[in-house]
Amino acid sequence: MAFELPIRVYWEDTDAGGIVFYANYLKFFERARTEWLRSLGIAQSRLREDTGGMFVVSQTQVRYLHPARLDDTLRVTARLQEAGRASLVIAQQAFLCPVSPTQSTEAPTGAPPCRSDGATPLVAEGEIRIGWVDAGTLRPARIPSIVLDALHV
Amino acid sequence: MAFELPIRVYWEDTDAGGIVFYANYLKFFERARTEWLRSLGIAQSRLREDTGGMFVVSQTQVRYLHPARLDDTLRVTARLQEAGRASLVIAQQAFLCPVSPTQSTEAPTGAPPCRSDGATPLVAEGEIRIGWVDAGTLRPARIPSIVLDALHV
Amino acid sequence: MAFELPIRVYWEDTDAGGIVFYANYLKFFERARTEWLRSLGIAQSRLREDTGGMFVVSQTQVRYLHPARLDDTLRVTARLQEAGRASLVIAQQAFLCPVSPTQSTEAPTGAPPCRSDGATPLVAEGEIRIGWVDAGTLRPARIPSIVLDALHV
Amino acid sequence: MAFELPIRVYWEDTDAGGIVFYANYLKFFERARTEWLRSLGIAQSRLREDTGGMFVVSQTQVRYLHPARLDDTLRVTARLQEAGRASLVIAQQAFLCPVSPTQSTEAPTGAPPCRSDGATPLVAEGEIRIGWVDAGTLRPARIPSIVLDALHV
Repeated sequence: MAFELPIRVYWEDTDAGGIVFYANYLKFFERARTEWLRSLGIAQSRLREDTGGMFVVSQTQVRYLHPARLDDTLRVTARLQEAGRASLVIAQQAFLCPVSPTQSTEAPTGAPPCRSDGATPLVAEGEIRIGWVDAGTLRPARIPSIVLDALHV
Repeated sequence: MAFELPIRVYWEDTDAGGIVFYANYLKFFERARTEWLRSLGIAQSRLREDTGGMFVVSQTQVRYLHPARLDDTLRVTARLQEAGRASLVIAQQAFLCPVSPTQSTEAPTGAPPCRSDGATPLVAEGEIRIGWVDAGTLRPARIPSIVLDALHV
Repeated sequence: MAFELPIRVYWEDTDAGGIVFYANYLKFFERARTEWLRSLGIAQSRLREDTGGMFVVSQTQVRYLHPARLDDTLRVTARLQEAGRASLVIAQQAFLCPVSPTQSTEAPTGAPPCRSDGATPLVAEGEIRIGWVDAGTLRPARIPSIVLDALHV
Repeated sequence: MAFELPIRVYWEDTDAGGIVFYANYLKFFERARTEWLRSLGIAQSRLREDTGGMFVVSQTQVRYLHPARLDDTLRVTARLQEAGRASLVIAQQAFLCPVSPTQSTEAPTGAPPCRSDGATPLVAEGEIRIGWVDAGTLRPARIPSIVLDALHV
């Protein structure tokens, strides 16, 4: 099952067309990738301190299928699609959540978990290739085994 | 007590100085203002459909006191400071959360609630003036009473 | 020959990796597409008023090949690759300009025209598909003939 | 006389209100500050390599007076307002340029120089305090004399 992160749409995310600015889905995908890695025990800033390396995005491919608007909540997924020794491909999707009839206001988090029952429109989907590099030289390098182990590859 | 929203720092928020790009605190403050209004029953997109009006920011004042970095969690507050017939002033602060020793991975939300015990550095603070305008003409107008009622002013 | 726009890298464009944040190349590409269309006599805001339609991005594919940094100047190109009745594909590239030994300070424009002689590293390249939609319904529609005429297709 | 930089408004700069997102004026101001410093011979990335220090923004104050929209051109100014040993205050303004009846398409630069004759609405204005810090520790430090000399203070 894919990892899921709820993300709320704010003014900052929209453009004069009245919908989410397409480039921002790359940000949403990255937030979900980051939390997915964190859920596996991988914190990127810590990893950089420990190994001197970091992930950089080397290729992105996104299809935009349905508009999202201010105050919408998206359910953004991340799933490992391909794993090599120096790079990974992550498949990601953003679904529009149905509007919550009521919403708890305790411990607000920006976006409530999305009820994923029923048909939720697919808003955008893509594949993101990330490669491991030395943080100083930006030269490609082998992904640390601690990362591959956490990904079970 | 001020409203609080936990916000995680992602790559998109940082700059080549290695810290959060200062302009992004205006985004963080707006996310917290938006969720604060929502917690009071005010959804801005719905309000615009119902009244033909919207809030626009007319003045911002921010002091940047402490750097925040990738993977940090901020606790961002919003508190009504001043209420007039056509505009409001919201006082906002961003605090650095202590690093969670362990973090639940169930129902991930991007940022866990921040334990606010103990001293957490004040990262940035500001006052944001928002004015009510007609969404078509952008002319100033009186804030709808439904909003003022929700704010108890 | 492809259209070219010089674009300067500012703090806002970079991330904590010390390089341009990859999502921002979509912004750079769009600036170049917009100025390319404008150079053909097509202003998008005017076109929307006149026709009630607008272009939206339906697919993006970008490869990131070489880092760019603060104060760098990029030469960003736009070239029509494919034209249909409802969508266009624009091929775009960003090259790193050699550092200008001296730079005129009269009539500053953010970025000086890039001397394109010699080898300039290819920083990023991509294909952007844009579709014409009704601005109200966001439903696909035929691209206005005034646009296709300007593009000579 | 204040330094001036023409800046074009693109989709990325707007929000669902149909106007420039207010936080983006901080970006526009920074582009103008950066080019103003460059026009005085100060390149920030070079300065960081040479001195190990950099400017960080410590306070911003902005008033938003008039909306700007997609395809508008702004004339953004920068002027030294106050100079101390560790920080500077820069006064900045953004004016709306009159629409060019015709526009040269040779050597396009994103935005043509703005004809500043006649009344151009003041869109936004602010004061930005920047402090000099050690790039490693982020501790305040004295502004290098090479910078103060270039500013004639």
